[in-house]
Order: sequence, then structure tokens, then C-alpha cells
Amino acid sequence: MGTEWTITLRVRYGEVDRMGIAYYANYLDWFTEGRTELLRRAGVAYREVEELGLLLPVLSTACRYHRPCGYDEEIELTTAARISPTRLRCDYRLQRAQDLLAEGYTEHAFVRASDMHPVNAARLFPEIFAKFRHLPAYRPTK
Amino acid sequence: MGTEWTITLRVRYGEVDRMGIAYYANYLDWFTEGRTELLRRAGVAYREVEELGLLLPVLSTACRYHRPCGYDEEIELTTAARISPTRLRCDYRLQRAQDLLAEGYTEHAFVRASDMHPVNAARLFPEIFAKFRHLPAYRPTK
Amino acid sequence: MGTEWTITLRVRYGEVDRMGIAYYANYLDWFTEGRTELLRRAGVAYREVEELGLLLPVLSTACRYHRPCGYDEEIELTTAARISPTRLRCDYRLQRAQDLLAEGYTEHAFVRASDMHPVNAARLFPEIFAKFRHLPAYRPTK
Amino acid sequence: MGTEWTITLRVRYGEVDRMGIAYYANYLDWFTEGRTELLRRAGVAYREVEELGLLLPVLSTACRYHRPCGYDEEIELTTAARISPTRLRCDYRLQRAQDLLAEGYTEHAFVRASDMHPVNAARLFPEIFAKFRHLPAYRPTK
Repeated sequence: MGTEWTITLRVRYGEVDRMGIAYYANYLDWFTEGRTELLRRAGVAYREVEELGLLLPVLSTACRYHRPCGYDEEIELTTAARISPTRLRCDYRLQRAQDLLAEGYTEHAFVRASDMHPVNAARLFPEIFAKFRHLPAYRPTK
Repeated sequence: MGTEWTITLRVRYGEVDRMGIAYYANYLDWFTEGRTELLRRAGVAYREVEELGLLLPVLSTACRYHRPCGYDEEIELTTAARISPTRLRCDYRLQRAQDLLAEGYTEHAFVRASDMHPVNAARLFPEIFAKFRHLPAYRPTK
Repeated sequence: MGTEWTITLRVRYGEVDRMGIAYYANYLDWFTEGRTELLRRAGVAYREVEELGLLLPVLSTACRYHRPCGYDEEIELTTAARISPTRLRCDYRLQRAQDLLAEGYTEHAFVRASDMHPVNAARLFPEIFAKFRHLPAYRPTK
Repeated sequence: MGTEWTITLRVRYGEVDRMGIAYYANYLDWFTEGRTELLRRAGVAYREVEELGLLLPVLSTACRYHRPCGYDEEIELTTAARISPTRLRCDYRLQRAQDLLAEGYTEHAFVRASDMHPVNAARLFPEIFAKFRHLPAYRPTK
């Protein structure tokens, strides 16, 4: 099983702003799409993770916009994910054919749904955490 | 206490599409704003209603778009609400100064949060329902 | 060529509200998706229509919500369109397997991009209007 | 005239996700609100800038999410901006009373609307650039 996954998206009408290009906040929606599909591919249905009481809210995100994209253009989003007992890190690369359009990342914390406290998922939710075992290890820098 | 309430909105950058006008789906976000503020004015914090276990999901909506509006324009949304033991009905009128921009409505059902079943709120949640007493009565057509 | 077209969507994380169900305004985004794909199927790239100077802003919309849908659920949206020299009318039916989730419509006017005036597209833009010839005729009620 | 500006926002219903907290992409919409209002305060109507042929697309953005916020909560967004002949840099701080909720930034390039090319705004659009004179200087790191 590979460590990254690519999905194809088409820029929606409502995602384009008055400059005629995709509005910058919508890239984060696409990141969520890429993340969901990569996890699914790695054997993790994120919806089930949440229903079992473990959440992955975003700690931080960043995106660099290299080239714009417009309505109805087909774009490819490649997501790579890494995992630690307390964190999920995803990196994103958006392309239109060979053109690099944008790059970004999201970092997520494992949080217990019942009280929204950060947890060591490997210790407190070992069965759910085991679902993430196909992802490469991640060592948070802080 | 009046039976309608007007709020002022400014069209956000991300709400405008490539035609340079506010995208039609965003009007429903504005309706939610108008509804929330009208209810607050009538003494109902909708957030508390939900937290007490009663929800008001939308059964139906409609909107007629008479004139477009663009980025950064100041617009006024007037909301009127009526209530029955099983329904909330809101009517919306969007204006830019004297110009009528759009008209619409939403109809909502009282639903129990625990099982998402429609309920007679006056009977099952009399204390919450009492909060809506300042709204005029509504007789659903069906 | 058929007169309707069905696309499959998956409910996005950001489209779901705190009730855990898809927020009502997002259905209109899906309608735009369905409309774009139906037109593409009928031989009309809507993006090109706009670039040739003809726009199709929404005149009115309505939606009835029969059953909710949640995050990551696969849903099917069927769109049917009809055309007149001044109008486009689309009807939408949203299903999850056999369950009818929602029904709605949008009505659009042909408008000249240069001045946003309504036009008879068959007369003023005959070459563009010819692209819509595979759609059944529509007789606006007003 | 100060170099930063604070606006008050209320978290909208549709901005909250199934975790019951504001969805991360919506913070970028709020940043746009803060930026627009700070510029207006500094004497620049961004809408007019665009209409004069100068655009400010986003080059990069980042956000750190410290504490979540929920539906209907009142939050305060403070924006500070700096300017160079080719760039606009904005920094954002989101608070609920004394609690720091999030911090982020956006960096923008001056781009000519006619061809979407980056420009030296001070040289090519001196009259528009003069509108930004109340903002402190910014020295892009790259």
C-alpha cells in the first residue's frame, strides 16, 4: 500500500470568486476531501473513528498558492499522511496536469470526543489507533 | 415587541461568484442569520433550544432573486417568524436601500434531538416552547 | 440522449452542521453540480457559454427536504433540464439508494454578460443557444 | 490612525461542523472580513482597488488553532497589515474575550487584472498605491 493518494476534483461554480479563480478558503475544503479519501484508502473510515469517540481537529494549516485555477477545471490533489500516537500530519499537493497549483499541510491532534481533551490514541484508543497502522510514522517537531 | 426584525449584512468576498454577484446558495446562509437574530430578539437563543434537546431542521425553502448584489454592498434582511406546536415558518425580504433584492421563506419542524423524530413541542417541551410565545401563530397548510 | 442525468456525490465534512446532517444551503451547491454535469452531458460546457457572453443567473429556487443525510454518505442527484429562448429550468431529485432525500428546482434567465440584461438567447445568441437544442422545451408559466 | 483594527463576529450556524465547532476553512473567510475592514479603516475600499484594475490574490496563508469556538459565540478578530510595492501582508489574531483562539496570516501579491501578472504597484498604479500609504512598510523575506 502506497503512502499517498491522488483524487481528481473539478472546481465548483460557487468556489470561484469575482477574480474568476478558486477562492483561497476552498482549498482547505479540498484538503479535507483528500485527507478523507487517503484515510479510506489506508483502511480508516474517518466517520467511524469519530463515532467511536475519537476526533481529529485541526491544530494548524498552511497553504502556498502558486498558480490559480478556474471554474470547471479538473485538478488533482495528492495527499500523504503520517501518524503519531498524538498527531496526524497530512501534506497536500494540488496540480493541473503538470502544473503545480498549490501545496499545503494540516496537522491534527487526537482528541477524546467526550471532553475534547488531547489524548495518546495508542494508549487510550488502541483498537481505533490500530486502524491507522498503514500510515508511516510522524514525529511532531514540538 | 414587533413581529419582524431587520439586520444589516455586507456581502463577503467569498460569497460572490465569477459573475461578480452574490452566489445564490449564500442567501440561505443570510436567512439563517436573519432567523437567529429575529429569534434572539423575541427572547429565544436558538443555541440554547438545541442544547435543551429540541432541533428545528429545515423542511422546505424557496427564494426568488429579483436583483443581484455585489461584493461589499450593504444589504438589509428583514425576517418575520410564526410558530405552531410543530412548525416554525420564517419569511425573508432582502433589500438594498429601497430596492427589493430577494424574497424567500424557510419552514422548520420541531424535532427531538435524541431520535430526530418530529414532535409536538408545546406538549413534549412546554418550557422551551414557551420561549417562542412572542411569535405570532402559524397554521401550516399541510 | 436522455433528458436527465445522475451524478454521485459524497457529503463533505464541511457541509455537515452541528446537528450532524448536511446543512440546507449546501443542497444548492449540489444542484449546481448536477446542472453543470447534465449540461455537459447534453453537449453544453457552461463555462464556454459564459465566456461567449451569455449568463444564466438564478431567478428562483426551491427545495423540499424529506430525509437528512450525514457526513461521508454517498448520495445520487438526478437533474432534468428544459429550455426556452429566455429561460432554463432544472429539476433535481436527491436520493440515497431508494430513499428520496430532497427535491428541488432552479429557474434561470438568459442574461447578456455585457450589461446583465435579460435576452432572447435564440435571437441574440443563436449559435450558443443551438448548443442547448438537445434539451426538451420549457414554457415558463409567467 | 492605528495600525490594526478589531471587528466582532458571531459564529454562523453553517460555519460549525459535526464536532460542534467552527470548521477550520471558515477562519479564512473571517480573515477576509478582517482584512476588508482594516483596509476600509485605513482609507482603502478594496472593491474600488479591484475595479481600478489591481488585484491582491493570496500567495500564502497559515493558521494555528489554539482553542475551538462554537455556534453563536461572539469572537473578536484583530487584523494588522503592512505594505510593500509588490506585497500586502496581514496578520490576524482571533479572541473570545481574553482567550486566544487562533492566529494566522495571509500574504498577497499586487497583480494586474488585465493579465494577472505580478506588478510593482507603486510604479504602475501610483494613484491606487497611494491609498495604502497609511499602512506600515513591509519587507517580504523572499
